Amino acid sequence: MNHSSSRSANGNKALLRDYVISPAIFELESEQIFNRHWRYVCRSSEISESSGLYRVDWLNERLFLARGEDGQVRAFRNFCRHRGSELVTAENCNTMGSRIQCPYHAWTYDRSGKLLAAPNMSDANGFDAEQWGLKSVKCEVWHGFVFVHLSDPSERLAEFLAPLESHATGWNFEDLVVAREIDYCVQANWKLIFQNYNECYHCPTVHPALNRLTPFQGATNDIADGPILGGPMLLSDDCQTMSTDGRRVGKYLPGLSEEQQRMVAYYTLFPGLFISPHPDYILLHRMERKATDETRVVCQFLFHPDSISEPGFDPTSAVEFWDLTNQQDWRVCELAQRGICDSSYEPGPYSDLESVVASFDRYYLAQMDRDYHERPPIGFPRSS
Amino acid sequence: MNHSSSRSANGNKALLRDYVISPAIFELESEQIFNRHWRYVCRSSEISESSGLYRVDWLNERLFLARGEDGQVRAFRNFCRHRGSELVTAENCNTMGSRIQCPYHAWTYDRSGKLLAAPNMSDANGFDAEQWGLKSVKCEVWHGFVFVHLSDPSERLAEFLAPLESHATGWNFEDLVVAREIDYCVQANWKLIFQNYNECYHCPTVHPALNRLTPFQGATNDIADGPILGGPMLLSDDCQTMSTDGRRVGKYLPGLSEEQQRMVAYYTLFPGLFISPHPDYILLHRMERKATDETRVVCQFLFHPDSISEPGFDPTSAVEFWDLTNQQDWRVCELAQRGICDSSYEPGPYSDLESVVASFDRYYLAQMDRDYHERPPIGFPRSS
Amino acid sequence: MNHSSSRSANGNKALLRDYVISPAIFELESEQIFNRHWRYVCRSSEISESSGLYRVDWLNERLFLARGEDGQVRAFRNFCRHRGSELVTAENCNTMGSRIQCPYHAWTYDRSGKLLAAPNMSDANGFDAEQWGLKSVKCEVWHGFVFVHLSDPSERLAEFLAPLESHATGWNFEDLVVAREIDYCVQANWKLIFQNYNECYHCPTVHPALNRLTPFQGATNDIADGPILGGPMLLSDDCQTMSTDGRRVGKYLPGLSEEQQRMVAYYTLFPGLFISPHPDYILLHRMERKATDETRVVCQFLFHPDSISEPGFDPTSAVEFWDLTNQQDWRVCELAQRGICDSSYEPGPYSDLESVVASFDRYYLAQMDRDYHERPPIGFPRSS
Repeated sequence: MNHSSSRSANGNKALLRDYVISPAIFELESEQIFNRHWRYVCRSSEISESSGLYRVDWLNERLFLARGEDGQVRAFRNFCRHRGSELVTAENCNTMGSRIQCPYHAWTYDRSGKLLAAPNMSDANGFDAEQWGLKSVKCEVWHGFVFVHLSDPSERLAEFLAPLESHATGWNFEDLVVAREIDYCVQANWKLIFQNYNECYHCPTVHPALNRLTPFQGATNDIADGPILGGPMLLSDDCQTMSTDGRRVGKYLPGLSEEQQRMVAYYTLFPGLFISPHPDYILLHRMERKATDETRVVCQFLFHPDSISEPGFDPTSAVEFWDLTNQQDWRVCELAQRGICDSSYEPGPYSDLESVVASFDRYYLAQMDRDYHERPPIGFPRSS
Repeated sequence: MNHSSSRSANGNKALLRDYVISPAIFELESEQIFNRHWRYVCRSSEISESSGLYRVDWLNERLFLARGEDGQVRAFRNFCRHRGSELVTAENCNTMGSRIQCPYHAWTYDRSGKLLAAPNMSDANGFDAEQWGLKSVKCEVWHGFVFVHLSDPSERLAEFLAPLESHATGWNFEDLVVAREIDYCVQANWKLIFQNYNECYHCPTVHPALNRLTPFQGATNDIADGPILGGPMLLSDDCQTMSTDGRRVGKYLPGLSEEQQRMVAYYTLFPGLFISPHPDYILLHRMERKATDETRVVCQFLFHPDSISEPGFDPTSAVEFWDLTNQQDWRVCELAQRGICDSSYEPGPYSDLESVVASFDRYYLAQMDRDYHERPPIGFPRSS
Repeated sequence: MNHSSSRSANGNKALLRDYVISPAIFELESEQIFNRHWRYVCRSSEISESSGLYRVDWLNERLFLARGEDGQVRAFRNFCRHRGSELVTAENCNTMGSRIQCPYHAWTYDRSGKLLAAPNMSDANGFDAEQWGLKSVKCEVWHGFVFVHLSDPSERLAEFLAPLESHATGWNFEDLVVAREIDYCVQANWKLIFQNYNECYHCPTVHPALNRLTPFQGATNDIADGPILGGPMLLSDDCQTMSTDGRRVGKYLPGLSEEQQRMVAYYTLFPGLFISPHPDYILLHRMERKATDETRVVCQFLFHPDSISEPGFDPTSAVEFWDLTNQQDWRVCELAQRGICDSSYEPGPYSDLESVVASFDRYYLAQMDRDYHERPPIGFPRSS
């Protein structure tokens, strides 16, 4: 939702049609992008206190997070090493005790993934329980945000998120908890949703209410290249936060500077999270690809526990404001998906207000192309 | 629905199974057939007087028709040249004024497709509004029938429809307006629906009521080869038109000869329209392929304005007659689709009453095969 | 549901992931397995007395069975040799008389498949009705079980089922009739359902009630290799049959030995039937593949006519017992399907209690691989 008047789209055009509609590209993204980036899962505080388990259902990645007795969060593949049964199910997720027992043949694991018991396996030729612990997945937590990495990360999570470190500290990301959540199913490619969030050129047309609270001319980008993109927008003088009446719904987040109390910031984290700090809350958008033309978006509102425990705390005016704004965005993303389907679609030119959209495209294409010299993907469209 | 006693099916057999069930053939048809023929869209009178816009949603072809201030109908690709958003949407189709404004970033076009305004694009490097008008599609109108052509037509619409010119004049196609419409979703390949309409061999079995009004022996073909096929059937002596009681539901269409008042004619126009003149109305079937085994059929009843404005005008008995007849036809088309799915299906022999079905197949195969020498399609079945 | 304490899984592991999720493997199974085995259709007594017709709808195999005036059951492809229409439809299946008339153009066949009448075909060049009889499919009946074979069987049905001949005689398979039926749609690959039925290692965890009636330690395998697998389990002392209260719901099947009255036997017949004789009834499971992750299972309860005609005959406690047990099984099969979808799934080791599962896998792989030397299937996974 940002632009810098000093930046330019440099005559770049949008992505080619195949990136939006091709199932082969969608498949290739799994390998080139989603298996090679830190991927946001949930807030640490969302991992159930009682069972300490959290299920993840991503296309063909079935994971679960487990909080150990040591308090540490670990991630595992959600299948039994015996016959492959899902272990943590929708039904048992909140009732399973400290051991994880398979519903099929009762193989039992502890929360570090170790196989504790496998009935009737003692006789099986050469069976060594040590070799059949759960498959683990790299998992790290940054200021309360739990991420996993499906392959071998080239950098620690904190390095990846370093550009946001000062924001995390300033806004106390660590302490915040989810007060509300809205779940959307958007009939659009995930990249159209990123592109939409990366510019405010559409705000006057699509979001008249938002544009009144934060006029699009007051947008700047403090991070304009790479996997994290975005920057602040200034609140209008008569407005305290983004809400239906422009008034705060919680206390100022503790320790904010006066400047921070007068702005909203919008950051997109490739490939599946938006973090948008407000003076009194943090807005999150978490994305899950479902198909070339379908994306699940879960929108969450994080508040400081001190706000939540205030008598009469009611975030409704913030939630309703963003629900309306989200739906306005999903509609134009869906219209773009429909239009791009036309067989004669050709990418159009970006305005300078879309310089960050061009940055997103550039980073995306670099990821898709990284193995080009090793193994040119057949039918892989080259950007012009 | 026709045959000529002098014609023969010449021992031809039906199309091979792959033409009915193969997704690859279905895909190839887009290029070989649907992008290379004039395709019927709607009656000119269906283009809204208020907004002058009409949306077309064909697989991956998203178009809209716009009537200009000069009254001329033009066709455009329904996406904005900036970020691809659909322009004319289901919601705005009837409320948009004389200018077409994109719902995403407010780029604005006039009804000749010219880009009038593109906010904030003045700075974008080398942006030239003249280059970013809407993509137009060839569009011509023949006696009130609006057709488009997605590539470069080798002949004008009127040449293509020349075999029907005398009928158009005789029945006053130009003046007629849609009085009723029924929308069907048929679980059958589009070609099975053409084949069904091209013979009346099934009439005694499938349509006992129809066969009483127009006995199948009274069918002749005046056009028996090429993209347009069909001919007249004689009405029984005690019958005035096709309706539940055989009585006319409107005045005779003006200027019909006595002979024309005693017949119904059935013409199929490759690849998506049937025109069937009756003494008092014209029956239209418009087809849209959805999948190998799914076709949308919109059935319309066109009357002369003089009939419609008669006190007590009520086309119900014609509509009900054809609704019943249509459903009888869709059922056997769906049964054929199911049977042909069987892995051991082999094409059977046509009777002489199906000579026009064989003509349809011959024209279809010639279209599918036209590039054979340039680029043999892999796996393309050859008729024996 | 069986194991022999003397048998071993020999360190075998489960099937590779592709066998469970790959559409290409699913497709290959049609050719390598389903077109090359005797496939169970229905009990002879299910072929309607009134019409003598029974429809079969398997993926792309549309068949029907017809009982001739000679009482013999024959199988045919369910399409008309003229234009391919389905002949025996859901609507006419129970009302068609002794001749099979096509709903499209009234071609008429007798129950031996001979074309009796083809209206208006006399003129068609070289038409010879003898050549256009229905396509027949090999069909044989074994003790009341009707099977078809889609290609050229290398052995007669009775040879294939020879290992069960003594059971068929002992339990009087011939005389039994279907008293109840339950139809399930399971979101799991068909092989997971076979594997589940081939071991009772899961019984203590998944089926506490069943395990009380027939403790899993009392399972033996009298057929442990090849397309038919299984064996008996001993009933607990205080239990007469499998039912909610462990009491018989019908008379003992006539002629059972005392030993047979004290056991339940479970046999899986590759690739689509389970036969499970009980002291007072036979339980059948018939399977139809729908997709890599979907299988229809029809569960039937066969009783002797003498039991059914008893005043107050009520099989509910057996039906309810198996409905519960079935649903417990489908749930773990579905969990396994979900877990195996995970991109990093690897087959785990079988216990000795799963020796018959390993036998199933071995037979399955041999079928899939039988043409390996002639035509190596691309991308065909090799078991390690």
